[in-house]
Amino acid sequence: MEIIRISDIRNYEGKEVEIRGWLYNRRSSGKIKFLIVRDGTSFVQATLIKNEMDEKIFDKADNINYESSIKISGVVKEEKRVPLGYEVLVKNIEVVSMAEDNYPISLKEHGVGYLMDYRHLWLRSPRQNAILRIRAEIIKSIRDFLDMNGFILMDTPILTPAACEGTTTLFETEYFDDKAYLAQSGQLYNEATAAAFGKVYCFGPTFRAEKSKTRRHLMEFWMVEPEASYVDFEECNEIEENLITYIVGKVLEKRTNELNLLERDISKLELIKTPFPRISYDEAIDILKSNGVKIEWGDDFGGEDETILSKKYDRPVFVHRYPVKCKAFYMKPDPKREEVVLGADLLAPEGYGEIIGGGQRIDDYELLERRLKEHKLPREKYEWYLDLRRYGSVPHSGFGLGIERTVAWVCGLSHIRETIPFPRMLNKIYP
Amino acid sequence: MEIIRISDIRNYEGKEVEIRGWLYNRRSSGKIKFLIVRDGTSFVQATLIKNEMDEKIFDKADNINYESSIKISGVVKEEKRVPLGYEVLVKNIEVVSMAEDNYPISLKEHGVGYLMDYRHLWLRSPRQNAILRIRAEIIKSIRDFLDMNGFILMDTPILTPAACEGTTTLFETEYFDDKAYLAQSGQLYNEATAAAFGKVYCFGPTFRAEKSKTRRHLMEFWMVEPEASYVDFEECNEIEENLITYIVGKVLEKRTNELNLLERDISKLELIKTPFPRISYDEAIDILKSNGVKIEWGDDFGGEDETILSKKYDRPVFVHRYPVKCKAFYMKPDPKREEVVLGADLLAPEGYGEIIGGGQRIDDYELLERRLKEHKLPREKYEWYLDLRRYGSVPHSGFGLGIERTVAWVCGLSHIRETIPFPRMLNKIYP
Repeated sequence: MEIIRISDIRNYEGKEVEIRGWLYNRRSSGKIKFLIVRDGTSFVQATLIKNEMDEKIFDKADNINYESSIKISGVVKEEKRVPLGYEVLVKNIEVVSMAEDNYPISLKEHGVGYLMDYRHLWLRSPRQNAILRIRAEIIKSIRDFLDMNGFILMDTPILTPAACEGTTTLFETEYFDDKAYLAQSGQLYNEATAAAFGKVYCFGPTFRAEKSKTRRHLMEFWMVEPEASYVDFEECNEIEENLITYIVGKVLEKRTNELNLLERDISKLELIKTPFPRISYDEAIDILKSNGVKIEWGDDFGGEDETILSKKYDRPVFVHRYPVKCKAFYMKPDPKREEVVLGADLLAPEGYGEIIGGGQRIDDYELLERRLKEHKLPREKYEWYLDLRRYGSVPHSGFGLGIERTVAWVCGLSHIRETIPFPRMLNKIYP
Repeated sequence: MEIIRISDIRNYEGKEVEIRGWLYNRRSSGKIKFLIVRDGTSFVQATLIKNEMDEKIFDKADNINYESSIKISGVVKEEKRVPLGYEVLVKNIEVVSMAEDNYPISLKEHGVGYLMDYRHLWLRSPRQNAILRIRAEIIKSIRDFLDMNGFILMDTPILTPAACEGTTTLFETEYFDDKAYLAQSGQLYNEATAAAFGKVYCFGPTFRAEKSKTRRHLMEFWMVEPEASYVDFEECNEIEENLITYIVGKVLEKRTNELNLLERDISKLELIKTPFPRISYDEAIDILKSNGVKIEWGDDFGGEDETILSKKYDRPVFVHRYPVKCKAFYMKPDPKREEVVLGADLLAPEGYGEIIGGGQRIDDYELLERRLKEHKLPREKYEWYLDLRRYGSVPHSGFGLGIERTVAWVCGLSHIRETIPFPRMLNKIYP
């Protein structure tokens, strides 16, 4: 008898199999009992028919507490009325470990605060399971896309001596006799590896100690940051839209069941095709004004502004050429218009807002030196970064894609907190 | 004219191409000049023949400083005498940005301390480039292996409220009104996600604030940690040896050029086949004693001990069943012999020592509770971890593979510092 995983069940019709998992739910109608068993890959209906099996086993099924670990064996049968399309006609059940009868996450509704306290158990529920399977698929699709397109993974350090975009929101730690800060970005290091390897990406956790509680922010989040030498601003935008289209295509192809379980409107995702619309920051300001937003040229966008803009389009929209002062010190000014940068944010549709920030970097030594001064950044910590313009400077561009925001958009979630196994939020670090 | 990457050059024989890169080296013999150009994917010989090209361009080639960014164009020609097998017969050279003429890493020898200060530039050298390409290949092969074998990526948090293996070597940071510690392992969280998803892995940076300077330690290093429900100790060892064999096979298949450049003895890597030898801790103690090491049963192994053991075998060797007190609190005791655990370290051959630590975890609630007390760990921080034994406990196992040590072994490096783009060492955090 083969031990199988539920996600493979369609290959075993008519065969006797064993499934090792946990009891998720149960219902009964006299002479038939249904156990819903999960094994981490999916959920299966295990059917017990009184007249067709050992009565002791049939009776035992009532006394197994939810979330007990169990092994069931029986024959796989097609069953069109269940979501999976197959069920198991149970012959035997073995209880591996009986759960206590007070499982904290019963099948009724719970508040999010309560569920977060039991995040280690909440992960077992079908909805959380589906979201995090989609997250894994998104991450895999990103890596595959970049590997296929000649980008090479170059891990950048988390412990860094200086900040990329200012110091107010940094986590600090003692580093022997020195101080270190948790990286908010691998950007600057990427520029060094891009000069050594051509096209690179880093992909790791990043940190922001922001005293804010919004549905779009976590203290610890994952980001992929590609960077490419000899790639200009427009080419960079093209890489971004190709990447996003690839991600969405892969999730549609491989995670349909999960999207359906989340009741995601798949037709909205099917619209995601290149090219994405592009509007300038100037145009965006006009749109916001005409929507009654009090905003002036030079202001940065808030979450609400992004929502307004991104609701206008059925696919992600690039907002390009922000004022220099809205963006990081290393962004290259537009040669035709020095007050804006060759940078763009990509806003996801349906009001999801920014998922990518990117653009071309300053390649001119003198300008970069001036920017460091203007931003009062300690030159000695950036000497190595200046070296990249002293020795073999090239036009180069890159971007950062936030994983959790992308997962929230693809899954259609209103809050980012469910997009990572153990979210780190304001005052929230347990479990 | 097509813009190509050097690694693809074999597909363009006889064609005119453009290569965008940097000037790495140069030599001249009167009427012929050779430029070595790198573009991050490889290094190519660009040949200038005085009588066959524009003389101005021929002369200009002498005045381009090392590491200047240049575009060269010309025809690809087979040339058996160069490592790549092809060269470019140059028609034109365009200097994108002239490097200053004092490039810090000249082609002569430099000390490692000096090179580390210029790590951002040192990465451009052929040797560093080869090592980090192999690193990327190893990481990709690990992810592919796990994805193909039904493991799902579940990122675990870096900011954690408590330590997995004691607190003396932790980096600490303020977390709003609380304290947080940088994770040394995703292990405990993996056990939660393994109970929700069956088979999982985390793959991220881990941190150890160890005041030691050895050739095997970094403060920040990457680790992959698979964890699987319903998998016992012996099955876990099999997963480990299959993974290692897969990794080595992929590097041999795809990174032969890089291994050759590093002068790695490839025949040693070709020996890496399953099954790997397995010796008990008891046997290991005997071996060490017979080698004159002063060690008693119950002592943990040091780096030197591992070197002695791992030199005895031509493939990685499992050392299993360590004394309980040598290993982490969550390791399952051997039911047949309570003083040792169902855990094993995997030591890489040629003296490289530990690359994996793994084993079966305690699945019994009472025993785990007792261990927490014995190790004086604060129960309230581990309440969620105990829940995993209250609700649906199963036999489960997992392991952690250190990326940098694996890269060092596969590449044949004597020190771990070159295995990551920006190593974090004692008192070393720049660049």
